[in-house]
Amino acid sequence: MDIAMIDAAATRLAGHALRTPLLHAPGLDAIAGRRVLVKAECLQHTGSFKFRGGWSAISALAPEARARGVLAYSSGNHAQGVARAALAHGVPAVILMPSDAPRAKIDGTRALEAEVILYDRATQDRDALGDALAADRGLTLVRPFDEPQVIAGQGTTGLEIAEQAAQAGVTEAEVLVCCGGGGLTSGIALALEARAPAFTVRPVEPEGFDDTARSLASGRIERNAAGSGGLCDAILTPAPGDITFPIMRRLCGPGIVVSDEDALRAMAAAFRHLRIVAEPGGAVALAAALFHGAALNADAVIVTVSGGNVDPEVFSRALDRGI
Amino acid sequence: MDIAMIDAAATRLAGHALRTPLLHAPGLDAIAGRRVLVKAECLQHTGSFKFRGGWSAISALAPEARARGVLAYSSGNHAQGVARAALAHGVPAVILMPSDAPRAKIDGTRALEAEVILYDRATQDRDALGDALAADRGLTLVRPFDEPQVIAGQGTTGLEIAEQAAQAGVTEAEVLVCCGGGGLTSGIALALEARAPAFTVRPVEPEGFDDTARSLASGRIERNAAGSGGLCDAILTPAPGDITFPIMRRLCGPGIVVSDEDALRAMAAAFRHLRIVAEPGGAVALAAALFHGAALNADAVIVTVSGGNVDPEVFSRALDRGI
Repeated sequence: MDIAMIDAAATRLAGHALRTPLLHAPGLDAIAGRRVLVKAECLQHTGSFKFRGGWSAISALAPEARARGVLAYSSGNHAQGVARAALAHGVPAVILMPSDAPRAKIDGTRALEAEVILYDRATQDRDALGDALAADRGLTLVRPFDEPQVIAGQGTTGLEIAEQAAQAGVTEAEVLVCCGGGGLTSGIALALEARAPAFTVRPVEPEGFDDTARSLASGRIERNAAGSGGLCDAILTPAPGDITFPIMRRLCGPGIVVSDEDALRAMAAAFRHLRIVAEPGGAVALAAALFHGAALNADAVIVTVSGGNVDPEVFSRALDRGI
Repeated sequence: MDIAMIDAAATRLAGHALRTPLLHAPGLDAIAGRRVLVKAECLQHTGSFKFRGGWSAISALAPEARARGVLAYSSGNHAQGVARAALAHGVPAVILMPSDAPRAKIDGTRALEAEVILYDRATQDRDALGDALAADRGLTLVRPFDEPQVIAGQGTTGLEIAEQAAQAGVTEAEVLVCCGGGGLTSGIALALEARAPAFTVRPVEPEGFDDTARSLASGRIERNAAGSGGLCDAILTPAPGDITFPIMRRLCGPGIVVSDEDALRAMAAAFRHLRIVAEPGGAVALAAALFHGAALNADAVIVTVSGGNVDPEVFSRALDRGI
């Protein structure tokens, strides 16, 4: 994993991924007490940064492997990112989704012409199912985060942050990244190491799922006690990855942990001040910037709003917070 | 009014206004039955295209006049656009707002350090009040739409549409524009006449406030019966302007009229498929694309989502529509 892989991914993504805007608003700066810049990846195709990694991985395959198609496990954003990238490449995508995944995400993935195969979390072994499918049809598995070409694709977000921050006159900042398995965090950290070395990347996680913060503190991979729960479904991974963790350990500052309530209030602030739709897991970095200022050091923070696929009911709950 | 004025405004706006993205989503194309591209001006500073016109007008003033400050009448988006542009220029802004304007818009304008003067619509003459203030303090009035430098600023949206549509491979399209007094519509029409002459601009208005559609049909300026009402507060102007109407008459196709219910459903679709926040008046063009396909001719439509300043209660109502 190096900056050359991220640059190569950026070349493959050019004209296909959206160069998302870096937004700001005086009202957010006032809440945070410092300058806040928001990389709005909720505006990316399929509503999250996951499209970048999906496109990067599929476009990097050898033509014969690509033609046979790809396989992904996901209940949400990774599924849609891979499905849309496969559709645009004209190759099959098979997505294994738990049968209790949100209806909207299953429908959204099917609308992108992926073959969705549902499995029962309690009684079926997802990996065995996937291995059999891959062997049977010659599909290539696209892992959600612990996969170099996926990390390279997510890292293109960091290239854009470096360029857009420079245009905005920001030369020193903490970059807060919503963190699940660490694909986006490690990709951005690698990109900024090369292009904006004065920036420090800080992973942000929800309470109860702070595996990365604890791993960074202890120096080894720590796991979460719970497997699911809470509102931030997009970033509830069990532990940082074998590839992503060493990168984060080398390059990132300490993790920050926020509550679901903080995430909801950040969603309301993004609605009011930026007119973007954030999902809970996509709002934790903004929540850290707005409500955890004591954990920050820099005069400017750059936050990812990493996804915006949220049920209307949850969004309305956030609006009731009335920021 | 010509393209040179719009190009000059674009030069003054460069690095200050956001180049908003041109978004698209397979789910919207499926609803519309044609290709839909969305110019997301709700992401512009202050949450609407009005920032462009405010910046254009203030930056075009002679330095002495600019230093004395500007005056605007507005209950909403124009107020915030002018206030923020004045703040960034370091000059005073006085905004006359009706005392029954939405609290959030009054607070939002004050947060931008404008001097807000409230007047009673029933008992006070706004224009006389404004004239006295302007004479007393040497302020320059920035009209909301019937003002060449304001039209030139809004027209920069059209320059970006021409460039971004070309990048997306769209060479023929109908361009649907949310239309109040016609500043945005006429500005975009002038820009596209020069830069994308195969595009046809179509104004879109809410039912009961279809002054522009009727004026285009009759060939002279027609007025609305009602002065206010309905959800689309941003575009409830009494009649097209003396400057904007001749431009629209020369360059635009027939107007399209949509219901408030259509606008709410379009807001829900923008939430789900694009993850942007549209206000009702900013969603009428998308509503026309999605629900009034029979009124359209082109295989591709480009729509402006012109603003996103909406109360949480109204937004939650839209989400209940469940697109």
